[in-house]
Amino acid sequence: MEEIVLKTENKISKILIGEKIENLTHYLPTNKKIIILTDTNVLKHYRHKLPPYPIIEIGTGEGIKNLSTIDYIMGQLIRHEADRSSYLVGIGGGIVCDIAGFAASIYMRGIRFGFVSTTLLSQVDASVGGKNGVNYEGYKNMVGVFNQPDFVICDTSMLTTLPREEYIGGYAEIIKHGCIRSHELFEFLENNVSRALAYDSHVIEHCVAQSVRIKAAVVENDEREKGERRILNFGHTFAHAIEKITALPHGKAVSIGMNYASYISYQLGMISENDYRRIRELITRFQLPTNFDFEPNTLVDAMRKDKKREGDDIHLVLLEAIGNAIVKPVTYNQLKTFVHDLCKHQ
Amino acid sequence: MEEIVLKTENKISKILIGEKIENLTHYLPTNKKIIILTDTNVLKHYRHKLPPYPIIEIGTGEGIKNLSTIDYIMGQLIRHEADRSSYLVGIGGGIVCDIAGFAASIYMRGIRFGFVSTTLLSQVDASVGGKNGVNYEGYKNMVGVFNQPDFVICDTSMLTTLPREEYIGGYAEIIKHGCIRSHELFEFLENNVSRALAYDSHVIEHCVAQSVRIKAAVVENDEREKGERRILNFGHTFAHAIEKITALPHGKAVSIGMNYASYISYQLGMISENDYRRIRELITRFQLPTNFDFEPNTLVDAMRKDKKREGDDIHLVLLEAIGNAIVKPVTYNQLKTFVHDLCKHQ
Repeated sequence: MEEIVLKTENKISKILIGEKIENLTHYLPTNKKIIILTDTNVLKHYRHKLPPYPIIEIGTGEGIKNLSTIDYIMGQLIRHEADRSSYLVGIGGGIVCDIAGFAASIYMRGIRFGFVSTTLLSQVDASVGGKNGVNYEGYKNMVGVFNQPDFVICDTSMLTTLPREEYIGGYAEIIKHGCIRSHELFEFLENNVSRALAYDSHVIEHCVAQSVRIKAAVVENDEREKGERRILNFGHTFAHAIEKITALPHGKAVSIGMNYASYISYQLGMISENDYRRIRELITRFQLPTNFDFEPNTLVDAMRKDKKREGDDIHLVLLEAIGNAIVKPVTYNQLKTFVHDLCKHQ
Repeated sequence: MEEIVLKTENKISKILIGEKIENLTHYLPTNKKIIILTDTNVLKHYRHKLPPYPIIEIGTGEGIKNLSTIDYIMGQLIRHEADRSSYLVGIGGGIVCDIAGFAASIYMRGIRFGFVSTTLLSQVDASVGGKNGVNYEGYKNMVGVFNQPDFVICDTSMLTTLPREEYIGGYAEIIKHGCIRSHELFEFLENNVSRALAYDSHVIEHCVAQSVRIKAAVVENDEREKGERRILNFGHTFAHAIEKITALPHGKAVSIGMNYASYISYQLGMISENDYRRIRELITRFQLPTNFDFEPNTLVDAMRKDKKREGDDIHLVLLEAIGNAIVKPVTYNQLKTFVHDLCKHQ
């Protein structure tokens, strides 16, 4: 078990990699009302492992991540007579943790909370860093706050019950962490694709720990995403737009977005053709897509409404090397040119 | 014009007493999208005084203070293409400011915001201190966050368009500030009842400034209401319950609640009979009620579900003197005894 501590403005958050759900109660306050928020799928596989606290159950899928679900949870918390000293534990993947973090942050103006993160995608990304919230109509994560959980248990043994596709999707974010901050992690991935795909626990724990370490370091410097944190959006400005106009899951959309951002970096002379090919190849070896069939104007329009936009510029995250990302504000017209070029050459 | 600065964890908030709505733009960032959130009533009286920014209009009354309104505002902000650098100005009373502060705090995980506070109740209380949020079914302020506005313009000249009853209701909170922290303010009120009721601008500005000073000092020490801030709830544990079971407006409910809390303080030997009578008399001279017709068990049940409850105790704010409040945790059974006693003797 490895413990990584994330220190932000007013909070200390512990990320526990390799800890088991069976030990959840060790991290919870005594003599307080504890309430679990989880989804149907987690209950199907792990109900027998949950401590005997009241459970608020929500459905699965991105469609559940909206204000109606928050409304429902507020009502449930009241029904369970949760008060200011009560504690919410979110158990699930990114969607459950995003919802649980937001619900806990606004119930009675904020109660304490922690997570058991049950998917690879959320262990390496969503549940770490204190972003939470829900979507609004087509727009991802439009409504939420920044707030850190007290702890995140990343029980890597729970990943075996994940659908294969979802497990693989998690590697998109791990590759991202390599691309933006760690040539070493990128090389580790290049050298361990088949072990990773075979659920080798050593490889998984190393990938999760390295990802969390990279993300925690970035978030500590810039919790509210005024600057440096933006590099975590590598591939994501494309990905969010792709998710808006297709049914592709997040991991696949991020893979495509990373390929596009790498291609633009290469076209701008920021990285070599060889580095671009290495990124593209690593994505492919992880059985993740690098391209999809799109109409350029539709993609640009979807990107224009991304939350990351400020004023008229869009902040694209590009690479100066594998392991070194920068943020580049581009105008709407520049973006249009890039996307039309991608459409021709990808 | 008087400026009071409120410093909390990560923010500096300026409260501008006697500033005019005409000067609003001086406090807003340039080159950013500004959006106004206000209500039908403010628009009726002051539309001609508003700067030419897009307006999100909501209705009036406590019934509007719910998650559906927040949902509506999120949609409107998206429609106006508000981004992370956009700025929300809430113009109105406590309800508009509570809603605007919450909406700004969760839109894209938080955009900047400021208030023009247009009612006496909100100038001396609601718009200062960074509490925001909405009700959930019968439960007041169940959903929200702590977050300070950049500024609050308290334009006291706008109070003349208030319904008389609403203007008078504001004095309930001013009396509260005297009771809990300032014998001087309490005496000032005793000596200026008729001037206050005649809208004397000197008296109004003094009352607003003193109230804001008291509230700001308390909030700076304890933004998140872990301890000292609770004294601001003097009269409010009763008031919230009274509002739940009657149609009384906040100011009247607080007046009754203050009388009850003062009576209990007197019964417990904490204040003299004379001090209790002074409080009761001041409330009455401001044409505010000190009692209502209630069934004790109904009142106790409504109090039991108050947000301020923690575990099994209810934190009652009582007085040790006029100008000195303390927080006393009482059990459910003690509360029951108090309320039955009130029912007999009030």
